[in-house]
Amino acid sequence: MDSQLILASGSLSRQALLSSAGVSFRVCGSGVDETTHKAAGMKEGLDGQAMTVRLAEAKVRAVLAQEHTFGVRGIIGADQILEHEGVWLDKPKHKDDARKQLQALRGKQYCLWTSVCLATKQGILWRHSEKATLRMRPFDDTVLEAYLRKAGEDVLLSPGACLLERHGIQLIDAIDGDYFSILGLPLLPLLQALRQQGWVTL
Amino acid sequence: MDSQLILASGSLSRQALLSSAGVSFRVCGSGVDETTHKAAGMKEGLDGQAMTVRLAEAKVRAVLAQEHTFGVRGIIGADQILEHEGVWLDKPKHKDDARKQLQALRGKQYCLWTSVCLATKQGILWRHSEKATLRMRPFDDTVLEAYLRKAGEDVLLSPGACLLERHGIQLIDAIDGDYFSILGLPLLPLLQALRQQGWVTL
Repeated sequence: MDSQLILASGSLSRQALLSSAGVSFRVCGSGVDETTHKAAGMKEGLDGQAMTVRLAEAKVRAVLAQEHTFGVRGIIGADQILEHEGVWLDKPKHKDDARKQLQALRGKQYCLWTSVCLATKQGILWRHSEKATLRMRPFDDTVLEAYLRKAGEDVLLSPGACLLERHGIQLIDAIDGDYFSILGLPLLPLLQALRQQGWVTL
Repeated sequence: MDSQLILASGSLSRQALLSSAGVSFRVCGSGVDETTHKAAGMKEGLDGQAMTVRLAEAKVRAVLAQEHTFGVRGIIGADQILEHEGVWLDKPKHKDDARKQLQALRGKQYCLWTSVCLATKQGILWRHSEKATLRMRPFDDTVLEAYLRKAGEDVLLSPGACLLERHGIQLIDAIDGDYFSILGLPLLPLLQALRQQGWVTL
C-alpha cells in the first residue's frame, strides 16, 4: 500500500527521514520555481508559515499534473523557509554566498518554518506547519573559514549554509523546536496523518 | 587534535551523532557491568539522572584504567536510562522480552534520562544531564506483531524495543525533549564543552 505514495521533494534529508521510518514511497520532483513563488508571496506580505504551506501545496499540485501519477494513492508535499530579521534565505548559490549567509547569521537567532501536506487527485487532504528557533553561535572568521573548508559542498545544501546533520551542527548553540521538522519534515504528525488515511498500516 | 578523543561507548547511535558532526574519535568499550551498577543504584534509591551520571562516569573510569589510553587527551562517557512508572527498562534480551516491553509502554508516557561526561587522567571535568518525555501511541496486538516482524533485530538495540531512528518512530506520538539526547548524546552541550577544552577547534 505504501508504495503508492509519492514524495514531491528532491530533499535527501526528507527522503532519509521517511525511509528510516520504514515508509515506502517514490520521489517525484515537482519542478516548482520557488524563487518566483517566494517573490510573489513577499509582495503579498505572506509570513513564513503561509509561504511554506503555499509552496508545499504548489509542489503536490505540480506533481499531480504529471501523467505518471496515474494509480498513485497519495502525495506528500513539504517546504521549509529560513527567516532571519524578516528576510527569507535560500540555499547559497556558491561558497561566497555561503560565507555571506554565515556572516549574517552568526551570533543570531533565526527561525525555520516547515510545512507538510497530503493530497490526492481530489485535492489537499491535510496540512501541518511547525516553527523552530535556532541560534548560531558567535564565531570568528578563522572558524568560519575552517568550517567552509571542512563542510565543502555541504554548505550549498541548506539555507543558512548550515547542514545540521553534518558539520553544521558545530555552529549551532541552541535549538528550540521539533528536530524532524528542522530537518525538513514534521515526521510525527505526518505519520499520524498517513495512518489515518490508511496509507501506512503499522 | 580530535583524534586523541575516546568515546567510551559501543552505542552505534552515539558514534553516528559524533561522526556526523565531524568530530574525530575512537571507540573504546568500557566493559562496565551496567546490571550490577543499576541494582546497586536502585538499592540506594538513586533517581534516573543520578544513575546515568554514575554510569557515564564509571564507563570513563573503566576506560582510563586500560593501558591503551596512553597519550589520550580526553574521554567521553555517556549513559541513558528509560524510566517508566519508577522502573528502569533495559534493552530487551530477545523478541518475547521486546513484546512485553511494548505491551507495558503502549499508550503510556515514559522518560529518558541521558547523561554525558568528559574526563582526563586527572578526573571528571564536566558532566551534563537531560530529561526527555516520550509517549508511545496506543496500538493493538496486530500492529505490535507487524512491528516486531518489520523491525526485526532492531528491537533488541534500544530499551523499550523502540529504535527511533528506524521503524520505532511509527510507535511514538509525542516527543518532548532534545532529540540528540533522546538518541543517546546531548550533542550541543557536549560540542560546547569539547570546544571549551580546546579538543574540537571548529
